[in-house]
Amino acid sequence: MATGPDYSARRSRLTRSFKSAGVDALLVTGLANVRYLTGFTGDSTWLYLSKSATVLISDTRYETQIANECDIVDVDIRDARKPMKVAVSEIVKKAKPKRLGFEPAHVTFGQHADLSEEITAAELVPTGGLTERLREVKDKWELQQIRDAVHMAERGIAVVRSGLTLDQTEQEIRYILEAAMRSFGATGPGFEPIVGVGPTAALPHAHAGDLSVSESPILLIDWGAETKSGYRSDLTRVFVTGKPSKQMEKVYNTVQEAQQAAIAAIKPGVKCVDVDTIARNIIADAGFGKRFGHGLGHGFGLEIHESVRMSPLTDQVFEPGMVVTVEPGIYLPGKFGVRIEDDILVTRDGHEVLSSVPREFDDAIVEFLA
Amino acid sequence: MATGPDYSARRSRLTRSFKSAGVDALLVTGLANVRYLTGFTGDSTWLYLSKSATVLISDTRYETQIANECDIVDVDIRDARKPMKVAVSEIVKKAKPKRLGFEPAHVTFGQHADLSEEITAAELVPTGGLTERLREVKDKWELQQIRDAVHMAERGIAVVRSGLTLDQTEQEIRYILEAAMRSFGATGPGFEPIVGVGPTAALPHAHAGDLSVSESPILLIDWGAETKSGYRSDLTRVFVTGKPSKQMEKVYNTVQEAQQAAIAAIKPGVKCVDVDTIARNIIADAGFGKRFGHGLGHGFGLEIHESVRMSPLTDQVFEPGMVVTVEPGIYLPGKFGVRIEDDILVTRDGHEVLSSVPREFDDAIVEFLA
Repeated sequence: MATGPDYSARRSRLTRSFKSAGVDALLVTGLANVRYLTGFTGDSTWLYLSKSATVLISDTRYETQIANECDIVDVDIRDARKPMKVAVSEIVKKAKPKRLGFEPAHVTFGQHADLSEEITAAELVPTGGLTERLREVKDKWELQQIRDAVHMAERGIAVVRSGLTLDQTEQEIRYILEAAMRSFGATGPGFEPIVGVGPTAALPHAHAGDLSVSESPILLIDWGAETKSGYRSDLTRVFVTGKPSKQMEKVYNTVQEAQQAAIAAIKPGVKCVDVDTIARNIIADAGFGKRFGHGLGHGFGLEIHESVRMSPLTDQVFEPGMVVTVEPGIYLPGKFGVRIEDDILVTRDGHEVLSSVPREFDDAIVEFLA
Repeated sequence: MATGPDYSARRSRLTRSFKSAGVDALLVTGLANVRYLTGFTGDSTWLYLSKSATVLISDTRYETQIANECDIVDVDIRDARKPMKVAVSEIVKKAKPKRLGFEPAHVTFGQHADLSEEITAAELVPTGGLTERLREVKDKWELQQIRDAVHMAERGIAVVRSGLTLDQTEQEIRYILEAAMRSFGATGPGFEPIVGVGPTAALPHAHAGDLSVSESPILLIDWGAETKSGYRSDLTRVFVTGKPSKQMEKVYNTVQEAQQAAIAAIKPGVKCVDVDTIARNIIADAGFGKRFGHGLGHGFGLEIHESVRMSPLTDQVFEPGMVVTVEPGIYLPGKFGVRIEDDILVTRDGHEVLSSVPREFDDAIVEFLA
């Protein structure tokens, strides 16, 4: 069994990156980054970190929770009378950093203006992605959490599939799936599950609605579980619930071919964009180039979308320990859509597919009594 | 029956505020603001708005959904090859605003840096709160949605209370509550419900965990429903599930007195801070001043926390049509906490309490067989 995370070691790795980033201290404001570095699961809480100081800045709502969840020695609890910017400024006055980094993706323009006004002794330096970079590569404990999240998701979809009827609606299926994943230990879905029949499946980010399974031969489910520790899984399968058209079969097989070719290319040293291109070209060659608009996949863990990204715009390279989705899709508006998504771990010499729900066209067919 | 929202009229009200804000156009990036102004329920989508142009900037994942949900004539769909900043810049080049407002609370420091780099012909002007200001006062249709959300929440808690047993855990109660609200038409909870037994109830923002009802005489539930239209309710009740201590009764009655006094003071023209002070003083006079650290309440609607806020720091004034929570609390770490929360509509000559779950101490007592 992997032991729990060593938050102190994570913080040490982060502070070792300060010198090359040109800062003496960092204000960590991204929720998932704060959780990764401290174990705290609430919100509205920032972390001031330097080689000599580690301070969680929170408010009275979280005083006891922080004591329960965190190994942090120094906690600054403010009440409703003290704004966050004042609490930060007081710490800066004591700790006296010259260059204080902040996370440009997790500080709004307005918050930065407030902080700039309040903090005059230190220079505020945008310092992006330091913690996200650490989070790209999962440690042994994190990988076990993600394997658990995949397991919960797979058991959940088995419950849905085994109980599927033609009169169930998208929403009903969503709730059955969520309840099943919880019964297997998930705290809930890893994100709002997408359950789409026919035309709804053609919307890559649809909300589950009132269409019933009988209204199209295509049922798309994009789902995942979240563990108690906050780690997620992210999968998509299409079920064929009626007589499919030739076009449906062609679209399905094209997506599946694109996905398998992309997965096969994943190993350390390979560029993310090159894997995206492999899938994109197969889909374009089949004549559906304009019907696959989104990126091929993304990292995930404490958040459902994390660095790295596979898209035409990324310049990242795979490393051992990264975990990504591979999820090409083809969407025919008003008709149907197909997306097939698996969770892939980059290993030292290649990759491991963490998810094992069958993905061949024949596997997707669900039989009902006539 | 109130008819559906007139998005075009909302946008007109917004553009009428541009002159005094000193901008020719506004880039709306807050998700709930975009939904309020267009009806679009997805994410990753911004609205460019001026007197002569209304453009939704989105990506291929949302092309069909926008066509289904929105009355917007002009939609700019980008694919994975085009970054958002480039799409915005292209629109600015065509529309030629001199001063382009943006929302400082909904644009990160990093996004602003990207936009500044790309957009050279227009000046980017931080223009905060224009849409939030409109959203503070709910129209007739919105009030009906909120009344529906309160109704769904109240029916949900009745299911929980009527089925309560001493061996149910916090998590089990949470799931029963969510399922019940869905059966009454909610798309889900309006936020992650807080279900806390004893010491968990002392954490104002706890996650529902594994404590069972039998472990303390105090059970706190903070919950709400979300309607299909995206509107929420937000209530809190404490149930007494065993023999309470004298201290529990005193704390309960203090919170209830503070809440009732605060609610009684709500009417148009009254300052939010003054209502906060009324509750805070009653709690302090009873000797629990340090045990009530958070603000007294907040507006809600499409988001669970909206303007206005009742706290020691606010300078807002009540107007007819505002809807707020009133939710004082007293938290004794390691022991228990009590919070009582209702949803209040500011009317022309006073207020209306939208929620009707009983709130007297005697009402809170749940009887079990010995």
